Amino acid sequence: MELNQINGGFQLTQNEQVLLSHTNRSPAFFVGIGKEKIEIYRGNFAIEDTIVERIPLKHSKIINNEIHLAYDELTATQLIIRLDSLSLQDSKLIIEQLDSQLNRFWIRLPAQEDEKVWGCGEQMSYFNLRGRHFPLWTSEPGVGRDKNTEITFLSDKYNKAGGDYYHTNYPQPTFVSSQHYACHVNSTAYADFDFRNTDYHELQIWEIPKSIEIYTALSFLDLIEKLSLRFGRQPKLPEWIYNGVILGLKGGEENSFSRMENAIAKGVSVAGIWCEDWAGIRQTSFGKRLFWDWKWSKKRYPNLDEKIKSLRERNIRFLAYVSPYLCEDGELYPLAKEKNLFAINKQGDVALVDFGEFNCGVLDFTNPETREWVKKEIIQKNMLDLGVSGWMADFGEYLPTNDLYLHNGIDAKLMHNAWPPLWASVNAEAVAERGLTGEIMFFMRAGFTGTQKFCPMLWAGDQCVDFSRHDGLNTVICGALSSGLLGNAYHHSDIGGYTSLFGNRRTKEVFERWVDMAAFTPMMRTHEGNRPDENFQFDQDVNTIAHLAKMTNIYRHLTPYLKHLVNEASEKGYPVQRPLFVHFEHDENTYDIQDQYMYGADLLVSPVHKQGVGEWTVYLPAQETWINVWNQQEIQGGQYITVPAPIGQPPLFYRKNSQWADLFAAIPRVS
Amino acid sequence: MELNQINGGFQLTQNEQVLLSHTNRSPAFFVGIGKEKIEIYRGNFAIEDTIVERIPLKHSKIINNEIHLAYDELTATQLIIRLDSLSLQDSKLIIEQLDSQLNRFWIRLPAQEDEKVWGCGEQMSYFNLRGRHFPLWTSEPGVGRDKNTEITFLSDKYNKAGGDYYHTNYPQPTFVSSQHYACHVNSTAYADFDFRNTDYHELQIWEIPKSIEIYTALSFLDLIEKLSLRFGRQPKLPEWIYNGVILGLKGGEENSFSRMENAIAKGVSVAGIWCEDWAGIRQTSFGKRLFWDWKWSKKRYPNLDEKIKSLRERNIRFLAYVSPYLCEDGELYPLAKEKNLFAINKQGDVALVDFGEFNCGVLDFTNPETREWVKKEIIQKNMLDLGVSGWMADFGEYLPTNDLYLHNGIDAKLMHNAWPPLWASVNAEAVAERGLTGEIMFFMRAGFTGTQKFCPMLWAGDQCVDFSRHDGLNTVICGALSSGLLGNAYHHSDIGGYTSLFGNRRTKEVFERWVDMAAFTPMMRTHEGNRPDENFQFDQDVNTIAHLAKMTNIYRHLTPYLKHLVNEASEKGYPVQRPLFVHFEHDENTYDIQDQYMYGADLLVSPVHKQGVGEWTVYLPAQETWINVWNQQEIQGGQYITVPAPIGQPPLFYRKNSQWADLFAAIPRVS
Repeated sequence: MELNQINGGFQLTQNEQVLLSHTNRSPAFFVGIGKEKIEIYRGNFAIEDTIVERIPLKHSKIINNEIHLAYDELTATQLIIRLDSLSLQDSKLIIEQLDSQLNRFWIRLPAQEDEKVWGCGEQMSYFNLRGRHFPLWTSEPGVGRDKNTEITFLSDKYNKAGGDYYHTNYPQPTFVSSQHYACHVNSTAYADFDFRNTDYHELQIWEIPKSIEIYTALSFLDLIEKLSLRFGRQPKLPEWIYNGVILGLKGGEENSFSRMENAIAKGVSVAGIWCEDWAGIRQTSFGKRLFWDWKWSKKRYPNLDEKIKSLRERNIRFLAYVSPYLCEDGELYPLAKEKNLFAINKQGDVALVDFGEFNCGVLDFTNPETREWVKKEIIQKNMLDLGVSGWMADFGEYLPTNDLYLHNGIDAKLMHNAWPPLWASVNAEAVAERGLTGEIMFFMRAGFTGTQKFCPMLWAGDQCVDFSRHDGLNTVICGALSSGLLGNAYHHSDIGGYTSLFGNRRTKEVFERWVDMAAFTPMMRTHEGNRPDENFQFDQDVNTIAHLAKMTNIYRHLTPYLKHLVNEASEKGYPVQRPLFVHFEHDENTYDIQDQYMYGADLLVSPVHKQGVGEWTVYLPAQETWINVWNQQEIQGGQYITVPAPIGQPPLFYRKNSQWADLFAAIPRVS
Repeated sequence: MELNQINGGFQLTQNEQVLLSHTNRSPAFFVGIGKEKIEIYRGNFAIEDTIVERIPLKHSKIINNEIHLAYDELTATQLIIRLDSLSLQDSKLIIEQLDSQLNRFWIRLPAQEDEKVWGCGEQMSYFNLRGRHFPLWTSEPGVGRDKNTEITFLSDKYNKAGGDYYHTNYPQPTFVSSQHYACHVNSTAYADFDFRNTDYHELQIWEIPKSIEIYTALSFLDLIEKLSLRFGRQPKLPEWIYNGVILGLKGGEENSFSRMENAIAKGVSVAGIWCEDWAGIRQTSFGKRLFWDWKWSKKRYPNLDEKIKSLRERNIRFLAYVSPYLCEDGELYPLAKEKNLFAINKQGDVALVDFGEFNCGVLDFTNPETREWVKKEIIQKNMLDLGVSGWMADFGEYLPTNDLYLHNGIDAKLMHNAWPPLWASVNAEAVAERGLTGEIMFFMRAGFTGTQKFCPMLWAGDQCVDFSRHDGLNTVICGALSSGLLGNAYHHSDIGGYTSLFGNRRTKEVFERWVDMAAFTPMMRTHEGNRPDENFQFDQDVNTIAHLAKMTNIYRHLTPYLKHLVNEASEKGYPVQRPLFVHFEHDENTYDIQDQYMYGADLLVSPVHKQGVGEWTVYLPAQETWINVWNQQEIQGGQYITVPAPIGQPPLFYRKNSQWADLFAAIPRVS
């Protein structure tokens, strides 16, 4: 990249492309002072900001290759920027802050009118971010996430939990532009990326960021490769994952295992059983909740150790559940308190967080002793030694910002977004220390920059058990595509969704459509949902269990192809589920598609995500001949086509000349 | 007032009180550039602002009694402020803008932690404004006005019309502080007054205002007197108003007049009949709407001219309805279009506004020819010559800000808030030109600075037909008290409320409680509501009509007292309905009370505004002995008391030693 002086300012260019332009009439940099108000209620944050000062740094001067920025030529320099070349195509702007009072930073990057922008972590509502702004702050994603729906209204009213389009468990201050560049901001502060303007993007960060990285490449795939190297790649999937579905079951030993055996007897291919209640439950007025004391509950699962051994002999794995909190009334809490492993409040007591009729201490992962203890006592001793092969590493988004003090002395406001990768790293290290990386599968919904390196598998969080636009089945695809662009190769979701509130119930149809999609993701896993008794379950109906059996067998059938994708993920950083445009750059019709995906380079999946439909309209990218898996019909790309879409036959197309054509062609014969 | 230099800045003080303090460490003035986005949908505005620059003017220098303000001592002066003394106690800061690019202005005024603040026009939700911010932009007030209610949710969803606590037909950039000062900003731009901070108030204005006025006084009554002189006082009430209620009836001649005769026959004291459909109706999918072509509909009211004459002989007046728009399909529209009396769009065509299945032209009151024509052709010829004695001068809040151009060449964004007083002035001048000021009673819901001078009577706008916290009966009191402090002496409301949507229906109880309150306001007027057939009406029930009769007789009974209050309003500017604290400054318990009021100095009214209650708790101010009107019980002030509160006996208390004690004591004997 090149830095050039221009009239009244400077420009950063790569070949002919202007990546940054700053002049006194149109400054790219602003600094200021803001006064924020952050209120947390059970993982939902109400955040307001008052901008006290916002100073355009109109005046720039290049001195010894350093850019000095000031309000005007007579006033003091506020920022010094040094350009660090990462490669011929990539640069880092290192920013030095001269006035320590400043706590707000804005940068404008040139935009084109027809430009698209993707990324910002795992976005659930909008894949192309243009036309909206995206606050970046890890939190609960909201229930309904659409202010025009009754469920969002009621969730807002009763739980402050309705959410909006931008709420996500996994934000990240990184975006990819259709102009073939990516931009990443090195900061864990609250940020707000604004893509609403025609001629510029404006990134807001609630500190002066240490640096900003800009990557360019000739193709989107090359850009993904670079980002995946930058943020870290995941280990390959464990071999046992390919064996079939992981059944999410709870309700104690007898219930869980007998239902699994029934599924196996009915032909379901089972890779594992996931009992999130392995550590016990507690009764609250909301219903049953897990008991947050991360060790085997001998009461609920009396023979679990033996059970795990015998399952493993049958090549079936057991998965558990863990979060980065310990409940006050558990056995582990006093031990951790004794060792000062929790974040503390102003009084020096454990900073307790309300999770709904029970309080927890926050394990302080900035304290090396906490990390050691959690790895050793919880993950290694209580989980790995028991024979557990994986777990949901839940939460990570709740770090309060008020009256909470951490071992590393850094303001909780700056550590809030950093928490998910910290939590991921504790899990990853515990596994690695036992030499089990790539053999153990834990999965997380919370994320931030760095998650890529530590978390082997994302899970899309808590969708509603429905087809709703902003919280239903289709949002999982958007989550996979946006996070995939930033180097998260593996993504999956709760089959059937999770959240059932205010009369919203999972139907047989929703469950089965979700199974249809999940067979074309790197991991299949069911979830009973938050209210198992009121929602449709996989074994409630003989047809459904037969359908599940068939789709798990299709998933197994595709093992050779999935392993090929896993190798690509490992070598190139390509996600298993990819936006259409990364393989069809020439076809701009693909740039906004967020409910279809390429499962690898050769298979196009278009999950049905509406109720009561018998056919489905799919866009097939141009300059390719496609084969419809279900009827072997040949179709020229570059058009929308409508195909039959019964349950059990999700719209699926492969490239005619794929090396995997025979494997794909055999899908309809799998039973 | 005194202007003094202090270390690093200056202070404005009155006696010992610091009214403005500016230093380089804690500047009071900020200027900047904002980029707003204003969307209108049927009088509901979605307004967003992006602050591009916000520069603290830290550096101040006093040169020849002028304050020069700049970012720092090396940069150019941005504002020059001259202090103009209005009196010994009152000052005006005249502001000169040196950089024409600036379009945002913020000023901070010192605040005390326990300070209260009132005013900002007619506020419907919160009387004490402390702890919240108040955008000041005339608009529809919203339906429900509470994001936690179903009616607001549905109104937002279907009509963008739910509103919030600060939405009002009548905002005004003026506030009164419990520190015995008032502050007024001379600007019609969008403003946002922020009273959320402990140690300062921050006023935001979307232009550099011409000036800011600060008034001080030793008592709140003196402050009101000053403000009422500053903004203009209203004429006295017409004599005919005292005769009783104005019955709002529509449905054509036969229906309206026969129902009025029935009411009179049942003992209701009637001052007038108000037929808003006098100009005809139109059918829309929403139901019947008025036909916006402001002339007598001979079809709907065939004998209206004769009718008005004969009613007047019986001392009953006829009231009509008018708005500042003309529908495209009416007879007046082509006449006004021919004369270029409408606001225009970019193409030079009439800028049409959608009012819901019909379009209207906006009469451009910045054009002297429009004013003349509306006064002469509509108000004088079509209304006064017909014998009309008053009217609802509806609307005034809808001036669009995009693609609308006015005769005076000023940006519609700056004229939007100016529109209500412009509309009021056209009405007032038309009346004055006929020598009928004080004889004709028109009433408006829309307002802004200057409304005081032109509008003889406020009407509280469109409440819901219920007891809801943010859009029901009690909000009318808040509206009367806040607008009253700023010099609007006369306020009243639609008896029974107006808005019935999404299943919300007016009950007998709501109607009767509203009558109970209205008897203690300067004017009683019923309204059928937006859906007459589905809502309770005054003549639907023999008990209700008897109750209305009794309360209109109580209203008449109080005529001598009300005339006394009207004289006070004329001579001192005191509103008829007053916050308790203006008469009880020593009792700070009164400062937050917004659901009780003093009806003049001597009568305390505490309307019942909840469903299904039989008793009511009232605060009686300290250092006074009170008499309960209904049972003559004597109570020492300075306490909350609970009294029986059946319908027909709204909690009412008078000062024991009032000169009007006999009149008040006789209230229970009125039948």
